[in-house]
Amino acid sequence: KACDVTDSFIFKEINTKLHLRSGFLIHVACVCAGHNASRDVVTLVKSILFHRRNPLHFHFITDTVANRILSSLFQSWMVPSVQVSFYDADELKSEVSWIPNKHYSGIYGLMKLTLTKALPAHLSKVIVLDTDITFATDVAELWGIFRKFTDKQVIGLVENQSDWYLGNLWKNHKPWPALGRGFNTGVILLYLDRLRKMGWEQMWRLTAERELMSMLSTSLADQDIFNAFIKQNPVLVHQLPCFWNVQLSDHTRSEQCYTEVSDLKVIHWNSPKKLRVKNKHVEFFRNLYLTFLEYDGNLLRRELFGCPSPASPQSSALEELDEDDQCYDFRRERLTIHRVHLYFLQYEDTPTEDGTDITLVAQLSMDRLQMLEAICKHWEGPISLALYMSDAEAQQFLRYAQASEVLKNRKNVGYHVVYKEGQFYPVNLVRNVALKNANTPYVFLTDVDFLPMYGLYDYLRRSVVQMDMSNTKKALVVPAFETLRYRLSFPKSKAELLSMLDMGTLYTFRYHVWPKGHAPTNYAKWRTATTPYKVEWEPDFEPYVVVKRDCPEYDQRFVGFGWNKVSHIMELDAQEYDLMVLPNAFMIHMPHAPSFDISKFRSSPSYRHCLNTLKDEFHQDLSRKYGSAALKYLTAQRNM
Amino acid sequence: KACDVTDSFIFKEINTKLHLRSGFLIHVACVCAGHNASRDVVTLVKSILFHRRNPLHFHFITDTVANRILSSLFQSWMVPSVQVSFYDADELKSEVSWIPNKHYSGIYGLMKLTLTKALPAHLSKVIVLDTDITFATDVAELWGIFRKFTDKQVIGLVENQSDWYLGNLWKNHKPWPALGRGFNTGVILLYLDRLRKMGWEQMWRLTAERELMSMLSTSLADQDIFNAFIKQNPVLVHQLPCFWNVQLSDHTRSEQCYTEVSDLKVIHWNSPKKLRVKNKHVEFFRNLYLTFLEYDGNLLRRELFGCPSPASPQSSALEELDEDDQCYDFRRERLTIHRVHLYFLQYEDTPTEDGTDITLVAQLSMDRLQMLEAICKHWEGPISLALYMSDAEAQQFLRYAQASEVLKNRKNVGYHVVYKEGQFYPVNLVRNVALKNANTPYVFLTDVDFLPMYGLYDYLRRSVVQMDMSNTKKALVVPAFETLRYRLSFPKSKAELLSMLDMGTLYTFRYHVWPKGHAPTNYAKWRTATTPYKVEWEPDFEPYVVVKRDCPEYDQRFVGFGWNKVSHIMELDAQEYDLMVLPNAFMIHMPHAPSFDISKFRSSPSYRHCLNTLKDEFHQDLSRKYGSAALKYLTAQRNM
Repeated sequence: KACDVTDSFIFKEINTKLHLRSGFLIHVACVCAGHNASRDVVTLVKSILFHRRNPLHFHFITDTVANRILSSLFQSWMVPSVQVSFYDADELKSEVSWIPNKHYSGIYGLMKLTLTKALPAHLSKVIVLDTDITFATDVAELWGIFRKFTDKQVIGLVENQSDWYLGNLWKNHKPWPALGRGFNTGVILLYLDRLRKMGWEQMWRLTAERELMSMLSTSLADQDIFNAFIKQNPVLVHQLPCFWNVQLSDHTRSEQCYTEVSDLKVIHWNSPKKLRVKNKHVEFFRNLYLTFLEYDGNLLRRELFGCPSPASPQSSALEELDEDDQCYDFRRERLTIHRVHLYFLQYEDTPTEDGTDITLVAQLSMDRLQMLEAICKHWEGPISLALYMSDAEAQQFLRYAQASEVLKNRKNVGYHVVYKEGQFYPVNLVRNVALKNANTPYVFLTDVDFLPMYGLYDYLRRSVVQMDMSNTKKALVVPAFETLRYRLSFPKSKAELLSMLDMGTLYTFRYHVWPKGHAPTNYAKWRTATTPYKVEWEPDFEPYVVVKRDCPEYDQRFVGFGWNKVSHIMELDAQEYDLMVLPNAFMIHMPHAPSFDISKFRSSPSYRHCLNTLKDEFHQDLSRKYGSAALKYLTAQRNM
Repeated sequence: KACDVTDSFIFKEINTKLHLRSGFLIHVACVCAGHNASRDVVTLVKSILFHRRNPLHFHFITDTVANRILSSLFQSWMVPSVQVSFYDADELKSEVSWIPNKHYSGIYGLMKLTLTKALPAHLSKVIVLDTDITFATDVAELWGIFRKFTDKQVIGLVENQSDWYLGNLWKNHKPWPALGRGFNTGVILLYLDRLRKMGWEQMWRLTAERELMSMLSTSLADQDIFNAFIKQNPVLVHQLPCFWNVQLSDHTRSEQCYTEVSDLKVIHWNSPKKLRVKNKHVEFFRNLYLTFLEYDGNLLRRELFGCPSPASPQSSALEELDEDDQCYDFRRERLTIHRVHLYFLQYEDTPTEDGTDITLVAQLSMDRLQMLEAICKHWEGPISLALYMSDAEAQQFLRYAQASEVLKNRKNVGYHVVYKEGQFYPVNLVRNVALKNANTPYVFLTDVDFLPMYGLYDYLRRSVVQMDMSNTKKALVVPAFETLRYRLSFPKSKAELLSMLDMGTLYTFRYHVWPKGHAPTNYAKWRTATTPYKVEWEPDFEPYVVVKRDCPEYDQRFVGFGWNKVSHIMELDAQEYDLMVLPNAFMIHMPHAPSFDISKFRSSPSYRHCLNTLKDEFHQDLSRKYGSAALKYLTAQRNM
């Protein structure tokens, strides 16, 4: 069947016109390692999806980092008629690690040589792309060129658009051997079948070994070896028209290509300078690139014509919803699957070895970005942040983070982007993304508009030991305060905090508008407490707590604002967590303008009505899960 | 010359392949009236520009509103190889106003009939489009179809995809006469030459008059008349393939079109429900539409290959800049021309007839949107707001404004979008857009994070008379205060304000961080003042003032933050405006988190250095303009 993306066995011959009809499956392979390449490759994928009319199968050769990022991204992206497979680059390392290489792509730059081995044996053809490629046309057009291969040809390539391999760039410049200008390996049509049959695996090795005797190392990674191989076996190459790989490195001759054709197909940002490269038409190319960089990836979820997607659990759940239900929009939002890009920026962290490490967990949108630097200054431990953003905002965030000295120097902050969709703020879904991607045994569940006291990270780690958290079920409460003033000199100690409280410079959190949320913390007792004390759950209690990472998730039915933390604390109580207030911990809420979403919904009676309906349903679910003990929540609710 | 957009005389014959090369000029006409259509047509234009490879000439038949909006938009958009002409719809009204019409498009729906007369006599062919059209392909492909016209054919149309003209939709449904299903006039290829020669102007009138005798009025505007005409003269029509006008109205048969072809060219949102229309593939179509709705229009400024733009004053000024100048980025920003969309939302206002009317003038970006409702509640007079936003943010703003009861009910607020570009916030450019588009004799120059006292509008209008503003050169100072607290109960009178000041609930504006900015207001004197008093200019004074609309503009060299209002007040003083403080006026600054841009730049030494350079240059310009009297500003500066 034409739309079957799982059927990669049969290659269907196509004629020139066929690419305008949908149907046949196209295979694309990409080597991708690390955080930055995983971000870059998304722009390539968007540009392919934007123009495509066929089912696609992406094959990613990835390291652990890229695998984690891209597998969760595609799983949540759910693009119809797109299949994704991953292959472990680390397993392939031994195949190429013996080759000395000076190119900035490192060992991963060499892995394209191993594709006949890495990809499934039944895969007969594949388009191989670098991550710094942008498509300006339907990839099916490129795929169609396989048809033009003679029986002998096994590899399709575009000629190099620089003089590198001519060996005349500077005195004593001695490049690897190549046919004339050589070929660029940013875009490859790889006839895997034929390569396997002719013994490619042995052949490229022999070539590499021979040349390395005089060359000592490769300069341009796989490209040097491909070119040396081709110089020996020129009949194996099918030369592609130059517009299939317009190379924007410096000193490029690419202009001779596209001024003639004026119909660009593929752009290759193969300068280490990337977008900052100088080129007469760079504005034009940059605009094309920026188009996809900021493009709303949700729009690419459209189905192919003639390829209806099989019913998913999500689609049948959607159909079961009653459109006339007053709370239809709420229920629908809960079924929305948001695209998630984990570890959007560089991330490196190993939890401390003593088993006490704690991750600060929070979520935010663009309007709270200015809090990040301050939080980083107040908390030196690991942080897991989920950011609710559009594709364009994610790029804005990237520029901000790259320009910030504070954020640049912190590698133990995991930034996870949850892409915007729909009219509600799915706050608990976003919180869960941050929670699930914490990598330490404990988590500090907080909000982004709070600053922890200085030293909280160390104090909490000590408390984790003191309270025997690993063998008991406890939630450590960090008492919350607030300031209504911008220019706060942050208290350096509990004593200082208490005197500011007495002066009226600080208040207990939400003292004026919602004291119930934190009253059970028992601030009066806390003033004089020197040891942790237990407090009881009460309705509407929503303290900030430290718990084990395997705590219950937030209930995602609560979207927009209201009851999102309350329901979580209730579930901790239902699971019999002890709520222990820490005597020497505090955090302070910093003022900010009311958020958009809050003001949008607080005034709406139907919003409040639906929130009540959702609360009732949550109570029923609690009773089902935890039995009669959970009835107390319902009773408490009814007495209010 | 192929790229000449001004040469619309010669139509160059083209062959099937030629549309892939750039060169020939394509003419597109559109009838566009009112604020909403002016916003919608931009999405159409973006979709055309996105795919085009040819020079284009847009012909807009507009009312006064659309003319003002679209002419300033295209002037600031500066898309290379695009020419725009406007034709006055009001002059054409008499041609069609005699035809009774029930269609929602009103009289403008009929104007397509008058195009042979409205458009220049030398224009031989034109593509006519409704504003609710989205292109999914290069418009040159459609233009190429003129070539396929037989000698007799004068009009190219797609068949209707509804059963309307079959007359069987309901009992007694009696549509206008048509050939079968009739034709849809959302997309027309109009062979103007031939129409003029055969006497179209008389012919359609005769048809209309004849049919109106029995039909009384048109239901579908021009489309009824076109169809009745075609029924009489079927040989004149060239029928276009259905994918050139896929009609998404309800009960559409359009599905039969695109499931066969799977290559859509043009989508027509011709249901009054627009995007909310029910259609099997509506997600697909909506995604295409949303792509262009939120698309960054700046990216469409790219030059056509082979059509280099002639040097503009802007480009030569850019070339004169020294790239090694430390302040290059600042100078470059000043030369950036930002796209401007005036009156983004519905606007209706007539200044009061007594010549005292005052517009509140302010600028903002997304992070201050939540202030708008409060300002509207505090100021009932006209408001001119410039909003600095991206295309995607403008849509977010639109949704916000349409959902807000407060904003929906105000028609005297002009919202002008200045599109984002570059790394600085061009605050004075944005202010000038708001200032220049105030339509009253006086303006109140304020900032969006201030709330005026209740009744300020009336008080200021009385003061304008009292102070004889029309015959003198005065700037009325509204004293500024601030609160550092969110929950402020806004003072109802000067007495209440003074007591809050004494209590420490309020402060004079920037009392803590920058008292010089407002100290010359002389708050001590103001406490007891009962009549306006004159104050002298002092360095760094930046009060909020009421002045005549023809006051000097803000100096646009000051971008980012710093010196943007100070320089303006300095220039008022140089022009010898008297600064008069009003004894019973006040305004209060509401707290907000520090803006992104401020924190980005305040810490940078090179930013401060460049600001000083710009100040020096501003002083020099002042001296040149106002002579030795302006030396006092330089002296004041040096003494600081």
